[in-house]
Amino acid sequence: MITLKRKNLLGLEGMSAEELIVILNTAKSFKEVSERPVKKVPALRGQTIANMFFEPSTRTRISFELAEKRLSADTVNFSSSTSSVKKGETLRDTAENLQAMKIDMIVIRHGASGAPHFLAGILDAAVVNAGDGTHEHPTQGLLDIFTLREKWGEVKDRKITIIGDITHSRVARSNIFGLVTLGADVTVCGPPTLLPPHLEDFGVRVQPDLRKAVKDADAVNVLRIQLERQKTSMFPSLDEYSRVFGVNNEVLKAAKPDCIVMHPGPMNRGIEISQDVADGDRAVILEQVTNGVAVRMSVLYLLSGGEAPENASEQEALGAINGEARGK
Amino acid sequence: MITLKRKNLLGLEGMSAEELIVILNTAKSFKEVSERPVKKVPALRGQTIANMFFEPSTRTRISFELAEKRLSADTVNFSSSTSSVKKGETLRDTAENLQAMKIDMIVIRHGASGAPHFLAGILDAAVVNAGDGTHEHPTQGLLDIFTLREKWGEVKDRKITIIGDITHSRVARSNIFGLVTLGADVTVCGPPTLLPPHLEDFGVRVQPDLRKAVKDADAVNVLRIQLERQKTSMFPSLDEYSRVFGVNNEVLKAAKPDCIVMHPGPMNRGIEISQDVADGDRAVILEQVTNGVAVRMSVLYLLSGGEAPENASEQEALGAINGEARGK
Amino acid sequence: MITLKRKNLLGLEGMSAEELIVILNTAKSFKEVSERPVKKVPALRGQTIANMFFEPSTRTRISFELAEKRLSADTVNFSSSTSSVKKGETLRDTAENLQAMKIDMIVIRHGASGAPHFLAGILDAAVVNAGDGTHEHPTQGLLDIFTLREKWGEVKDRKITIIGDITHSRVARSNIFGLVTLGADVTVCGPPTLLPPHLEDFGVRVQPDLRKAVKDADAVNVLRIQLERQKTSMFPSLDEYSRVFGVNNEVLKAAKPDCIVMHPGPMNRGIEISQDVADGDRAVILEQVTNGVAVRMSVLYLLSGGEAPENASEQEALGAINGEARGK
Repeated sequence: MITLKRKNLLGLEGMSAEELIVILNTAKSFKEVSERPVKKVPALRGQTIANMFFEPSTRTRISFELAEKRLSADTVNFSSSTSSVKKGETLRDTAENLQAMKIDMIVIRHGASGAPHFLAGILDAAVVNAGDGTHEHPTQGLLDIFTLREKWGEVKDRKITIIGDITHSRVARSNIFGLVTLGADVTVCGPPTLLPPHLEDFGVRVQPDLRKAVKDADAVNVLRIQLERQKTSMFPSLDEYSRVFGVNNEVLKAAKPDCIVMHPGPMNRGIEISQDVADGDRAVILEQVTNGVAVRMSVLYLLSGGEAPENASEQEALGAINGEARGK
Repeated sequence: MITLKRKNLLGLEGMSAEELIVILNTAKSFKEVSERPVKKVPALRGQTIANMFFEPSTRTRISFELAEKRLSADTVNFSSSTSSVKKGETLRDTAENLQAMKIDMIVIRHGASGAPHFLAGILDAAVVNAGDGTHEHPTQGLLDIFTLREKWGEVKDRKITIIGDITHSRVARSNIFGLVTLGADVTVCGPPTLLPPHLEDFGVRVQPDLRKAVKDADAVNVLRIQLERQKTSMFPSLDEYSRVFGVNNEVLKAAKPDCIVMHPGPMNRGIEISQDVADGDRAVILEQVTNGVAVRMSVLYLLSGGEAPENASEQEALGAINGEARGK
Repeated sequence: MITLKRKNLLGLEGMSAEELIVILNTAKSFKEVSERPVKKVPALRGQTIANMFFEPSTRTRISFELAEKRLSADTVNFSSSTSSVKKGETLRDTAENLQAMKIDMIVIRHGASGAPHFLAGILDAAVVNAGDGTHEHPTQGLLDIFTLREKWGEVKDRKITIIGDITHSRVARSNIFGLVTLGADVTVCGPPTLLPPHLEDFGVRVQPDLRKAVKDADAVNVLRIQLERQKTSMFPSLDEYSRVFGVNNEVLKAAKPDCIVMHPGPMNRGIEISQDVADGDRAVILEQVTNGVAVRMSVLYLLSGGEAPENASEQEALGAINGEARGK
């Protein structure tokens, strides 16, 4: 019987390869649930999950909400624009209130790096980081790795190039931590002003020249240019960025012929990724979205104490998940 | 066994009388569900429906949400103000993302005419138009016709007068298409600047004089003046509009004595409809709202492949709907 | 068999001691539900509840929503910012529409005192006041009394001091009505400009001197200074307020040693309540939040016609609640 021996998912930094594999293997079983006519298992029936989104989000919020509903949990949503946050309540008081209402898990997206860690330190409820500032977005990292493993089996020794604003990207950071732990060969590329110093210490190559960075890549992960966050200009112009760092079919000629193209979405088509690449055969961008629901079901299920199906056949594993809610 | 042989409900234009009758007859069975102490049938259990509302709405959104919950579907809501739309994502990408999350149906309200058709063309998920620009609002048309049929049996040869801003009204368009297909005698009336040309080609009479238009009417459908959409003035003033086109008891003297009064809501009381008419005996405005939930349950159920109860007795039909979810 | 012979909960004014006790005793049984792994009973399965919040709220809205979901009701949410209210619809029309959709209960928070009473007068659906203007917030009053009774058994002859802006506080009013009915000894304290005249007529002592008001108190209920509502200055400054009426450990020396400290939240830490008191041993602020869910479950259950477990043992009572939904 394999369980995840942690209460929270705050980031992929510091997680062992074994833990990552448990989550990813369990997600395989859950992916099948969303393919059924009745997309529902009773695993979290009667448990309550609060989705606290302090930043706007479509896909991540809906992906979590679907994951929760397909696990039969009860959900409440909370967004900063209609909440007591307007009345100046502290994050701590807001969270302690939710916990006092006997909420089992809190999924939080917050503009401040470390906000989920702060909550995890004071709450008994499980905390899942759905993106915190420029720090981590661990379920995005997991779904990206899930998507690669689905194609390759393992990511070990595969060359993955991450392209964009590395300094401010929580997606990049979660990918880097997870991929390096699983033995992948990670290269990052972007404007020198958007590449943090000392990245090599994390076991990552830094290559500011796009064509060199993409050379022989097995996969490229194209980051979104956060137009809405660019207060001061860290690069000359969108046009300039697109010309030097935009990923198009011409750039991909340097990569392996079957190079996988990923993007966390939402895409700025024609800026960081060209239309033909976004809609091309090598793009797995919508598969990433599909896998996101499965990975989030896996995380929520395992954090609630659910058993991973690693040593069981897939069929037996599904049987366990479909059975009555655990521990009752 | 009768099913609706279409994946989407985009508009009533082009639908056959048979299709309309299948939806309306099925709605009769569902109306009974909302009268029960337990207002729930398992027909869509484990299916996921996304409500995408890009325009503000109370009654239509809540009516759809209730219809979905009473069919036991899982629902996620999405409104433009808290979504990735702010980040500039295209409608296509937003919709493809929802589909990648294995959403079974998308209910969409959008300010752009044709937005639901665009989605239907690219998605496998069923698409239900909850109002698109000035084009159609098919479930409103269906619930209006359902309400009339509940009173009369058939709408054939009945005189229905639609009054208001015909040019910009998706409610008027859906009513016209449905009613004409079912053999009703439809007259439209409004300020000449708000009457589209060539309406007679649709089988509709145009009569700009209110008293003449209402003469011998079996029903009048009073459209809402869209105060919030009147950017440029298509008529002199609200006061002028109310005086010339406002429906009050004096105007209704020209109609049949038992003339039915409908309004899609929300009403501007004292403008397009007088207080006494709105609250009078002939008004069926709240019955329309009640029937809206039943019609939407019927549409969602049939689009998901459910069987219509047309050839069965009502009781047997309800038995089928109450049974286990189909196809599992 | 004991039931609550009323359709609505509009305020604690005029409720009998017997009615209050029925609600509070029933809440005890429901408190246990939220402690279980499966936090759900089928009591309101298939019933529909609309949460209409015309003012921002986190804890009250989420507390009601959790109460509803733990009773297995279907819920729809409605907030003024995304609704037809923008289109100028009257509250009456909005509510009649919800009722036409066969909604069983409406939970309403509104800035206008009396809004819930207005709805109750025209609707068959049950109406629960979740806070109306400066009038009442009855479930807050009930949860405060529940919390005190949990500590003491009875509130009779206990001294409770309510401190703050009494004139504008719906929390104070609901507490006063409930506590006086149950025989408690209530003192109110605050700046003279924020103390309504003739309060003694309600059976309440008025004492503007904080130390005198707190003397020998069994409990203090510290009201929130509604920073967002202070349009004109009713007191010199926040600093001045805090210095004269802020509750800190030094002030509490005058109270009984085991004096209970309550606050309805969200707190302005360092203004009406000091950090050390807010986080101290005597504070029951988070217990109030926990009890809020139980009290709201009790209210919704009883208003729907559920039977109170008063004459049954707790165990039998829970059995009844856990059984099949009533009247089916």
